[in-house]
Amino acid sequence: MNEYVLAGGDAAAIARILASGHAADAVEALNREPRALALRLLEEAPLERAAEILDQPELDGASELVAALPRERVVDLLGAMSADRAADVLRAIGEPARAQLLHAMTPPLRRALTAILGYPEGSAGSIMTTEYVSVPPHWTVARTLDHIRQVERSRETVYAIYVVDPESRVLLHAFGLRRLIAADPQARLGDIVPERSPVTVPPLTDVEQVAHTIRKYDLLAVPVVEDGRIVGIVTVDDVLDTMIEEGTEDAHRFGGMEALDEPYMRMGFLSMIGKRGGWLCALFLSEMLTASVMQHYEVALEKAVVLTLFIPLIMSSGGNSGSQATSLVIRAMALREITLADWWRVALRELPSGLVLGAMLGLVGAARIVAWQYLGLYDYGPYWHLIAATVGLALVGIVTFGSLTGSMLPFALKRIGFDPASASAPFVATLVDVTGLAIYFTVAALVLAGTVL
Amino acid sequence: MNEYVLAGGDAAAIARILASGHAADAVEALNREPRALALRLLEEAPLERAAEILDQPELDGASELVAALPRERVVDLLGAMSADRAADVLRAIGEPARAQLLHAMTPPLRRALTAILGYPEGSAGSIMTTEYVSVPPHWTVARTLDHIRQVERSRETVYAIYVVDPESRVLLHAFGLRRLIAADPQARLGDIVPERSPVTVPPLTDVEQVAHTIRKYDLLAVPVVEDGRIVGIVTVDDVLDTMIEEGTEDAHRFGGMEALDEPYMRMGFLSMIGKRGGWLCALFLSEMLTASVMQHYEVALEKAVVLTLFIPLIMSSGGNSGSQATSLVIRAMALREITLADWWRVALRELPSGLVLGAMLGLVGAARIVAWQYLGLYDYGPYWHLIAATVGLALVGIVTFGSLTGSMLPFALKRIGFDPASASAPFVATLVDVTGLAIYFTVAALVLAGTVL
Repeated sequence: MNEYVLAGGDAAAIARILASGHAADAVEALNREPRALALRLLEEAPLERAAEILDQPELDGASELVAALPRERVVDLLGAMSADRAADVLRAIGEPARAQLLHAMTPPLRRALTAILGYPEGSAGSIMTTEYVSVPPHWTVARTLDHIRQVERSRETVYAIYVVDPESRVLLHAFGLRRLIAADPQARLGDIVPERSPVTVPPLTDVEQVAHTIRKYDLLAVPVVEDGRIVGIVTVDDVLDTMIEEGTEDAHRFGGMEALDEPYMRMGFLSMIGKRGGWLCALFLSEMLTASVMQHYEVALEKAVVLTLFIPLIMSSGGNSGSQATSLVIRAMALREITLADWWRVALRELPSGLVLGAMLGLVGAARIVAWQYLGLYDYGPYWHLIAATVGLALVGIVTFGSLTGSMLPFALKRIGFDPASASAPFVATLVDVTGLAIYFTVAALVLAGTVL
Repeated sequence: MNEYVLAGGDAAAIARILASGHAADAVEALNREPRALALRLLEEAPLERAAEILDQPELDGASELVAALPRERVVDLLGAMSADRAADVLRAIGEPARAQLLHAMTPPLRRALTAILGYPEGSAGSIMTTEYVSVPPHWTVARTLDHIRQVERSRETVYAIYVVDPESRVLLHAFGLRRLIAADPQARLGDIVPERSPVTVPPLTDVEQVAHTIRKYDLLAVPVVEDGRIVGIVTVDDVLDTMIEEGTEDAHRFGGMEALDEPYMRMGFLSMIGKRGGWLCALFLSEMLTASVMQHYEVALEKAVVLTLFIPLIMSSGGNSGSQATSLVIRAMALREITLADWWRVALRELPSGLVLGAMLGLVGAARIVAWQYLGLYDYGPYWHLIAATVGLALVGIVTFGSLTGSMLPFALKRIGFDPASASAPFVATLVDVTGLAIYFTVAALVLAGTVL
């Protein structure tokens, strides 16, 4: 189909978008075509245009494309791209190709990219750009604006201007461009005292925390500062991209799988099976404990098969309430509304919630049994009222247990050093299922004692 | 405890933050104190500072605070705030108070706010601001920069400049400020031809789509345009806020509940029970069908109680694979990687995925039964090999069915006009449970025909 579109009437429209349309539109069009077209474009288009295309994080398979290009072209392209995106592309290229490319670059570019590549993935340092406007404090506003005019094309943003000590690289102030154009052109930057000291982040700050900072202070960029020295800046559009990625990761993990690192429809079949199969098997092996629990209570089951009728209903209610509590707590943690120290506050909230919700379901469940019995829709045997009581009480216990387990699991994971977002709905359901069965059979043994059991 | 902090040694630090710290820090401090402090601050602080505080969407209970202030003060505050945030606050204030406030305002402010309030929630129009820089095409670059210097403080962003026909309000061009300061000061705006026509959105565009547009084109703001005329702009920081909110909504809904509209720890107990109880009851009532299915197969169950041992295991596997598929599809839809028309492509992907994943679990499940039997850990009876085959085959069927159901549910919801993100993990699990039981008993009846059944 792709071949057809290219060969057919739309070829002219595609060529136009590729040549002069917005780079984002060009990438969207390229992603629908065979990779050979993207390769040809990156090789033959004017350098600036090719770099602009490669600068879009949405371009599929960027590092494979780069690996297939002649080395000199790649070095030129990486130099013309934004530093943070060039580092992204290099990060995905394996050694020794990466070292060879770095070696072929100009020393300043190599230093900038090596610095970014040195920070661990997911840190502020790893997504920062080194292309920002920094000026010494003795410059005047007019000279700074002149400087901005000259460097405008090579800087990711010129809307944040950093006043930096030329010797030590220590960050002194940060100005918004709007502040500068409103200022007296002859004033020296060092003499304009900003209202507040700049908001900064250390290079090892988690990307989510950087997003939180940018959002909280409504910034367009935040400087990354180490020992007082500015090493780069993170811009709001990088944060947007990062938030989308994190959102996808969290959604996939909450669904009970490893996060896919490619779009669903482009992901290789076997990679996808790998991302899903691992968790699915782990959950399956844990859930096998339910069979052991059932075996343990088999004698009771044989005496009162009627009890088995409600097993799926009761188990799923525990899983559902747990899934609700987990999603609430994971999200509140991601938004920094609650921290590890708040676990007992959350527990004190989930305990009554679970009791109330469990009582609601318990009443409905017991009423259903009574109603079916009275209406003659089903005969639950001579002890039907005790069966109804068992189901009702078990639901109170299981929903309460589910809410508590679901809300505490993210805390427990965080406490032992895992990402709390690994607490998925299926994970919680599995935890609750095993204990839920034990609760059900215990309640049954107590309520039905001296009758069928 | 809050009283203590205020009365204790930290009072001076809090007072300092409230008086001159960053507004976001002041709001964070205020949110930890009794509401009376926030009220006093909004009433007594200098107007500009009070408006700055109220401009932070993070301020808890903003509309209650505003409702408690004297009317003249509120009118002054709303005038000093950004228009989009003022509209947010007004939206949360009920009639007739809202109409009275609007009536007391200056006509231009009233018109601006009424326009924003007129758009449905969740649309571009409802989150846009009317405070942007718009200039006629005959102005020079120098005059425009002068204008920006004058209006800088009253505009939400001055980094995007809109060239607008003064008569018709038709949007002609959009410039970034960086482009303007690099241009010849004497050039007329109408003569500088930008490379591309401005990216715009209609006022009824869904907020998620606005975020997508801003992110795709790396914009700092996008103009909202109706019939060619500019009616407002949406800025990147509003989009960030909106994305966080949407992320929270999606997380809560995927957890199987209505989205909370307040932070978890601040939400009223009864409201939270309401948001959770509704879905929990709906799921419970649907899940009751499992009891009916079990009743239907009760004769088989009584003959082969051993079959009940694996019910929780088998049901949960279907739910887990469904939860994975749902989270994949919801996310891919949110990122616009797939549309409604792609449903059959997704189905063609999920069918083999489900078969492979089901076969994996089926092998593990059957092996477990064989192993336990051989090791003498449990006696599954004379037909243990048939039981193992039943469990293995049922798992293939149920995991495949779960993957298909989970992936198709968001499409079905979207098709009938619901939000695909309502397809939660518990929702899918419930759908899969009922059919899963039927699959299990059907497989058992076929495999065990002529033996115990």
